[in-house]
Amino acid sequence: MSTRLPLNELHRSLADPALSAMTFLNEAVERFPGAVSFAPGRPAEGEFRTADITRYLSAYVSYRAEVEGASEARITAELFQYGRTNGQIHGLIARTVANDEDIVIDPEAVVVTVGAQEGMLLVLRALFADAADVLLVASPCYVGITGVARLLGIEMVPVPEGPNGLEPAVLRQVSAQVRASGKRPRALYLVPDFANPTGSSVPGATRRQLLDVAAAADLLVIEDNPYGLFRRVGESPLTLKALDADRRVIYIGSFAKTCMPGARVGYVLADQPVTDALGRRTLLAGELSKIKSMVTVNTSAVSQAVIGGMLVDSGFRLREANTDAVKLYAQNLQLLLDELSDRFADRAGISWNRPDGGFFVVVTVPFLADDAALERSARDFGVLWTPMSYFHIDGGGRRQLRLSCSALTPEDIRAGVVRLVAFVNSEESRTPQ
Amino acid sequence: MSTRLPLNELHRSLADPALSAMTFLNEAVERFPGAVSFAPGRPAEGEFRTADITRYLSAYVSYRAEVEGASEARITAELFQYGRTNGQIHGLIARTVANDEDIVIDPEAVVVTVGAQEGMLLVLRALFADAADVLLVASPCYVGITGVARLLGIEMVPVPEGPNGLEPAVLRQVSAQVRASGKRPRALYLVPDFANPTGSSVPGATRRQLLDVAAAADLLVIEDNPYGLFRRVGESPLTLKALDADRRVIYIGSFAKTCMPGARVGYVLADQPVTDALGRRTLLAGELSKIKSMVTVNTSAVSQAVIGGMLVDSGFRLREANTDAVKLYAQNLQLLLDELSDRFADRAGISWNRPDGGFFVVVTVPFLADDAALERSARDFGVLWTPMSYFHIDGGGRRQLRLSCSALTPEDIRAGVVRLVAFVNSEESRTPQ
Repeated sequence: MSTRLPLNELHRSLADPALSAMTFLNEAVERFPGAVSFAPGRPAEGEFRTADITRYLSAYVSYRAEVEGASEARITAELFQYGRTNGQIHGLIARTVANDEDIVIDPEAVVVTVGAQEGMLLVLRALFADAADVLLVASPCYVGITGVARLLGIEMVPVPEGPNGLEPAVLRQVSAQVRASGKRPRALYLVPDFANPTGSSVPGATRRQLLDVAAAADLLVIEDNPYGLFRRVGESPLTLKALDADRRVIYIGSFAKTCMPGARVGYVLADQPVTDALGRRTLLAGELSKIKSMVTVNTSAVSQAVIGGMLVDSGFRLREANTDAVKLYAQNLQLLLDELSDRFADRAGISWNRPDGGFFVVVTVPFLADDAALERSARDFGVLWTPMSYFHIDGGGRRQLRLSCSALTPEDIRAGVVRLVAFVNSEESRTPQ
Repeated sequence: MSTRLPLNELHRSLADPALSAMTFLNEAVERFPGAVSFAPGRPAEGEFRTADITRYLSAYVSYRAEVEGASEARITAELFQYGRTNGQIHGLIARTVANDEDIVIDPEAVVVTVGAQEGMLLVLRALFADAADVLLVASPCYVGITGVARLLGIEMVPVPEGPNGLEPAVLRQVSAQVRASGKRPRALYLVPDFANPTGSSVPGATRRQLLDVAAAADLLVIEDNPYGLFRRVGESPLTLKALDADRRVIYIGSFAKTCMPGARVGYVLADQPVTDALGRRTLLAGELSKIKSMVTVNTSAVSQAVIGGMLVDSGFRLREANTDAVKLYAQNLQLLLDELSDRFADRAGISWNRPDGGFFVVVTVPFLADDAALERSARDFGVLWTPMSYFHIDGGGRRQLRLSCSALTPEDIRAGVVRLVAFVNSEESRTPQ
């Protein structure tokens, strides 16, 4: 007699509609391999070769030996054994964010994580202790953070973004509402640069105001920055962390887009002082390390060495090392925007935003962009996209779709927009609004 | 004005005494580098060379290309890109557990995890949905599982082990008590082979009885088996999973001891059918994948390739590939037991167990083996060990210490026991009992 587990007796996060939605999307990508896919936000594969892994490993090992003076036995133990919970390449990461982002950070405040995703889990688990603690999320919002919040049973309240990302006045208002309801707005999660899913960015001038509102509301800020380097036009403003004079910002970084996703290496910068009842002081990074020891113990030493080698190889300057990638993504985004303009010119009811960079564009349509529409789009028109409703925790985005152009060729982008037009035409003639 | 976080406003798992204890122990190891350390349960480093990583990577890549017929572009994408959530080497793992453990498992039921630790997190998060759900833990118990339970706020009830590990009658009794208290014993966690910390094993004849009790009590069983290959004497009984006719056992495996810790690759075998309200059926592994997508997204593809290469290299037989390691650990354990016999012969109040394998021995002493004693032991006698109290969630083990002999040389084991005798002498003359 086989054991059977009813789904409704498993944890409620497994019933999260965003999870089933993502499963549906992934299955659609597999069921329609010939479709042009504007769906996944994955990086372009560029010029990677398997032999590069060995080259980066060697670069890291040479650096440890020749520059840092580590013995062969020590380096071997670092690669093969259990190691420091918060990672081995924390110093290299601190140098890189100093060069790339003007973020000055003590290496002891760096936690090397299994991708940015583990960083989100560690940070939310550490900060949320009480059922009255609420996570404010810029909305629409990356599914990774809402997924972690659901895993941990953390209440979320959306803070609606405007065309220029999160607005200080709206943050102040939502924060006050939460507090008035007897709850405690504990932290705000946002992606200030080319957010997933909207592509929108918070202007430089607004960033200090956001920090001021956070300070006044006694809110911690969780800044997630996977796309910041990939600017199409304009100048990059400083990150919130670079502006963070009072250590209010916990910064989550990713090497998935700037180096490679397959290594699964990200990091958290957590330089907040933590004091215990006896007045002893640690850094939040040290507390995150205790949680990490219960989640993954260590980030793969092999992966850290590969990413470490890429950092060494770049002279600790990923902005420069990504010059070609930045150009590629900017060209893709520009082409997508141009094609949308050409093909949907002056079309009533169809609009889209024009992000200054990143991987994503949001298109507003005059019909429901739901799973059924996605199915028709893939099956009948050979084009995939992501329903924006997946990124709303409060039922919004039902007539919007996200287009990702990061991993497509120019030919695919052109063909994809042609197919998208055909799909939109069909939906409009199909659905009386 | 710097943000300050009071520790008591962070998550309560950070106040777990086992965590501070482990921190204390790790610091002691660092503060007394000249001490012989019986503390950490890490594997011996053996003959590892950095170049081996490249060799294993190549072995995996060749296998994918030549045996499985994957194209170069496909292999490169697998190594560098985001990939299948439940991993890429699930088929290789299924072959290996079939050869090594007589476990027949559908590769789709294998979840490749960031070490066994992530496996524990995924399994506990999936199974525990309700505040009335209780985790039964064999006691004393590995700190990794109690740590995860505390992260997730899961109530634990200890099931005391006897000299031969967990006993069916005790399991039946504790399970009934939990149910009588209005709670639901949801799952049992145990390490049936050479448990951490006790080194004890459940005899083969008892294993079916344990499964029968679990079935009668409607308990799922979480079997964790990091040490099973490392037998000193006797024959290996089948694992619970190999005996599991009704898919009651969720098996957690580790490559940290049989391959290398630094890759951080483990796995979960979860072939339980899950049915939703519409009667649709998935495997528990598929549900775990949804949780994994919110924890680490993927296990490092580079790490999977390294471990995959080691599996290929071993002909999918880690038992044979570990012949030298098995011998080394058996010799170390035998030597430690012999030295304890020689040096503590007939000493009143001192006793220890004689595990058939694994990394650990438990010594009972007639004084408190607490942090203060550990400090004296390290500082004045140059020998480190682990207080057994760290592994009890209910205050036991205060006069016991764990000795680990896995990563020591014979000379260190001999010298360590001499130092331990001097320490014990000192404590006995010091402490009026």
